[in-house]
Amino acid sequence: MAELGRIAIVGLGLIGGSLAQALRRARPELHILGVDADAATRELARASGAVNDAVAVADAPWDGCDVVVLAVPAQALVEMLPTVAGRMRAGAVLTDVCGAKERVCAVGGAQSRVRFVGAHPMAGTEFRGFAAAQPGLFDGCTVAIAVPAESSAWQTVRSMWQLAGAARFVEVAPAVHDRAVAFASHLPYLAAAAVVESMLDHASDAAQLARDLAAGGFRDTTRLAGDGTVGGAAALNRFVTEEARGLAERLRGLADELDRDPGTALARLGRLADERRRMKLPPPTLVPSPARKL
Amino acid sequence: MAELGRIAIVGLGLIGGSLAQALRRARPELHILGVDADAATRELARASGAVNDAVAVADAPWDGCDVVVLAVPAQALVEMLPTVAGRMRAGAVLTDVCGAKERVCAVGGAQSRVRFVGAHPMAGTEFRGFAAAQPGLFDGCTVAIAVPAESSAWQTVRSMWQLAGAARFVEVAPAVHDRAVAFASHLPYLAAAAVVESMLDHASDAAQLARDLAAGGFRDTTRLAGDGTVGGAAALNRFVTEEARGLAERLRGLADELDRDPGTALARLGRLADERRRMKLPPPTLVPSPARKL
Repeated sequence: MAELGRIAIVGLGLIGGSLAQALRRARPELHILGVDADAATRELARASGAVNDAVAVADAPWDGCDVVVLAVPAQALVEMLPTVAGRMRAGAVLTDVCGAKERVCAVGGAQSRVRFVGAHPMAGTEFRGFAAAQPGLFDGCTVAIAVPAESSAWQTVRSMWQLAGAARFVEVAPAVHDRAVAFASHLPYLAAAAVVESMLDHASDAAQLARDLAAGGFRDTTRLAGDGTVGGAAALNRFVTEEARGLAERLRGLADELDRDPGTALARLGRLADERRRMKLPPPTLVPSPARKL
Repeated sequence: MAELGRIAIVGLGLIGGSLAQALRRARPELHILGVDADAATRELARASGAVNDAVAVADAPWDGCDVVVLAVPAQALVEMLPTVAGRMRAGAVLTDVCGAKERVCAVGGAQSRVRFVGAHPMAGTEFRGFAAAQPGLFDGCTVAIAVPAESSAWQTVRSMWQLAGAARFVEVAPAVHDRAVAFASHLPYLAAAAVVESMLDHASDAAQLARDLAAGGFRDTTRLAGDGTVGGAAALNRFVTEEARGLAERLRGLADELDRDPGTALARLGRLADERRRMKLPPPTLVPSPARKL
């Protein structure tokens, strides 16, 4: 397993905070620096013991880091990456966790001072912030790693995620990743958000009753809508808007078919139900909510 | 608690089978007759001990039942209801579990031989059949009961669901129920089905990668698509198709906004994420899959 050296994790939210906790759990002696703009978050992270220290972005000793992990929201990531790379030691490893890889890897590849490896751990919950972080978030998860990536830097990033609990690695070109993630994550996210907005936009009495009658189906279908960080990645994914229009067209077609020929629509829905049940998807894990943890 | 007498449950699938098991758990001495078209299902139900006996529809002693629960798919329910009512003892109680109440209650109200009470337990999983049934499926769930309903029949149905584990009852006019359930269940279902279809319709290599990269977000967003029985209820709900077209329009608008003005789109998605997290929804329960049970 490649040596990790001194790691800095920038952004101590759900993903960055969980990564710090997971690495601490696996290797207590690892030197982990937390970097976050929020003083209360830094204090929480320090108190947890997951990081050796936590500092503001302006105070980060970039040139003393062997590996820097950018775990900030997508837009901030694209803006911050060149500055951080420019202050790091030449040849050090810079990586990220963003759910859209094409834009991020283009920015990472536009410099040659540090070795950039785009990565995307397929894990998350609808909760936010360091308070929601947990060391087991990545246990058994898949990490997509954007290719081409320089070989030893690639090994370093892979080792880090293995330590954090990841079980599978998929090497993929950034554009191919983004197109697949549009279907795997960004369309489900936009559909979930649209369903939530549909319910909220209705007269308050109907909406209240709908909430009273919402069972596990609504809860699960819309869970992803609570994960605001997916939106930033979706906005950076050039395949998303066209495919979202395609999804809208498909939904309208289903509605028309239910009106015109319900038997055919039900047969179509039945086939989809069968296909969905046959999909080999990761099993659900009962992730404790922040409220239950405290 | 009202006396239940001899109960027949018609359709020993996930809902009917779970109801039999839940009633058996609560009151071992209760006389429960299972009615199902499938011989293997009848055998499974008999062997489980959840029913005293199981018979085919043609062999059911309808006139010996005090309560008959129709737990068959929506379209079959509408077709079967008048026949069953006509063969039951005058004044006995007939009820159902369908997720669309307006059409079903109209059919139930078109006869006066038996006392019909439309009910809808807000529970389910994506698994099907008696093999997936479980006595705890309704623990803590909400049951919608369509009004107006004759008072003592209403009490009987309520008592039955309390025995089965239900914790809350919402009395609601059928049309009001259907409009609320369109948002709580049927739109989420159609959105989930459309997302599954989007993924399946793509080139197999991209689809395979999308499945490899599908994490909990995709799993949860599309879980409801695996529940084929929701489709039948959605097809009977007159509010669904118009609202599904509205949802499609909303999704297209989100896509256009992401293209035109991503900052505004992200602010909108962020507000929806906040609202979603604030919703008081039932907590997730780890429902064992049939594979894990066997």
